[in-house]
Amino acid sequence: MNMVLLFENDFISQEQVSVSGRRAKHILSVHRAEKDKVLNIGLLNGNLGKGTVLDIRGDNIVMDVRLDIAPPAPLPLTLILAMPRPKSFRKALHVATSMGIKKIIIIETWKVDKSYWKSPMIEADNVRDEIFLGLEQAKDTIMPEVIFKRRFKPFIEDDAPALTEGTAKLIADPYATELCPFDFKGPLSLAIGPEGGFTDYELNAFQDIGFKSVSIGTRILRVEFALAALTARLFNI
Amino acid sequence: MNMVLLFENDFISQEQVSVSGRRAKHILSVHRAEKDKVLNIGLLNGNLGKGTVLDIRGDNIVMDVRLDIAPPAPLPLTLILAMPRPKSFRKALHVATSMGIKKIIIIETWKVDKSYWKSPMIEADNVRDEIFLGLEQAKDTIMPEVIFKRRFKPFIEDDAPALTEGTAKLIADPYATELCPFDFKGPLSLAIGPEGGFTDYELNAFQDIGFKSVSIGTRILRVEFALAALTARLFNI
Repeated sequence: MNMVLLFENDFISQEQVSVSGRRAKHILSVHRAEKDKVLNIGLLNGNLGKGTVLDIRGDNIVMDVRLDIAPPAPLPLTLILAMPRPKSFRKALHVATSMGIKKIIIIETWKVDKSYWKSPMIEADNVRDEIFLGLEQAKDTIMPEVIFKRRFKPFIEDDAPALTEGTAKLIADPYATELCPFDFKGPLSLAIGPEGGFTDYELNAFQDIGFKSVSIGTRILRVEFALAALTARLFNI
Repeated sequence: MNMVLLFENDFISQEQVSVSGRRAKHILSVHRAEKDKVLNIGLLNGNLGKGTVLDIRGDNIVMDVRLDIAPPAPLPLTLILAMPRPKSFRKALHVATSMGIKKIIIIETWKVDKSYWKSPMIEADNVRDEIFLGLEQAKDTIMPEVIFKRRFKPFIEDDAPALTEGTAKLIADPYATELCPFDFKGPLSLAIGPEGGFTDYELNAFQDIGFKSVSIGTRILRVEFALAALTARLFNI
């Protein structure tokens, strides 16, 4: 946790918060907070700043807060991700959030195991908690939007054109002959397939709406690492 | 496992191998191999190719093998990594291997928790097993070299100049004002600090031997993701 994420309901007065639970435990055990300790803080969907510990009352930490720094700019990147296995989904969500991606669309493709959609990891509370960890990691405060579009055909035919409107469009495909650009300028939609890859039908369907296949090399990475690799190749985070 | 990694002692004749244990289990359960199934294979430190299942005898899979494709070229990247917490060490080792880094130097710095050096994860057998998984992930066969240099001062003064000779030299530092280059040409050494960052003394010591601080943005990533991000920004993998 490089920053303590604050919520509106942490405020006990205009400039004071009382933090408890997971965050308080972490502040006490890892940051070894005591009175007058200054911590990096950020208000969910608001500013960053500094919090000064005023008092520690059992599991409650009371801080004086100053929130006067804008959060980092969002990346102009819309991510379309074939649902990974639950553990990878969690890591992908973490890294997408911590790299500043603000629109994450999770889709089903032919090679996605149906059981993944029954994982507790995709329940709203768990998604939100993992996003909070990603924001705290990156010192960011702006919640990404996570959209689940389970059926491929309605997604690609009905939703994708609108969801990716006004953006350049790339598919990450280790078998593509064209290399992924470096240092991309402007809004971009990036589709990343499942471990087994997209089917030809799916690749064609993406191409039909303007997506182009690119690769960062022949080596195949786990989805969470592919995501980190592609994002930092395309944008400063 | 995108490739079955073979070892010299798997060979039962010039062109046949018998695979057992973890690899056989994976081939049976995930690839659902049966007679005549063709699998991607690679010989440790040798060629890639195809294996055709001839026979499944209990936990043993006998394959006819053809190894006629060179493995992907190694990255010209020497990685210097402050020892991460054990879970991150494992992931960093995995992703460094699967991205084709062939020289990995693990060092101690001021902000590295001393307990990390007692983790079973850094024992030779566990390091080797994680590397095998990274190679299988990436369809690569060439073992990276992992060098542990525990003491910072002897490392930076005595070892680092020789270990990084003839390479450009960068330190990844989220607080650097200069941005990390894209699409780097030629041999490079890259130092990545611990979660808390390098100390000023350490940064100066790196700078004294020619390292320059660069950043990929203000957001701070977990070390395994920072590693994936930096590598794909600098090189095609």
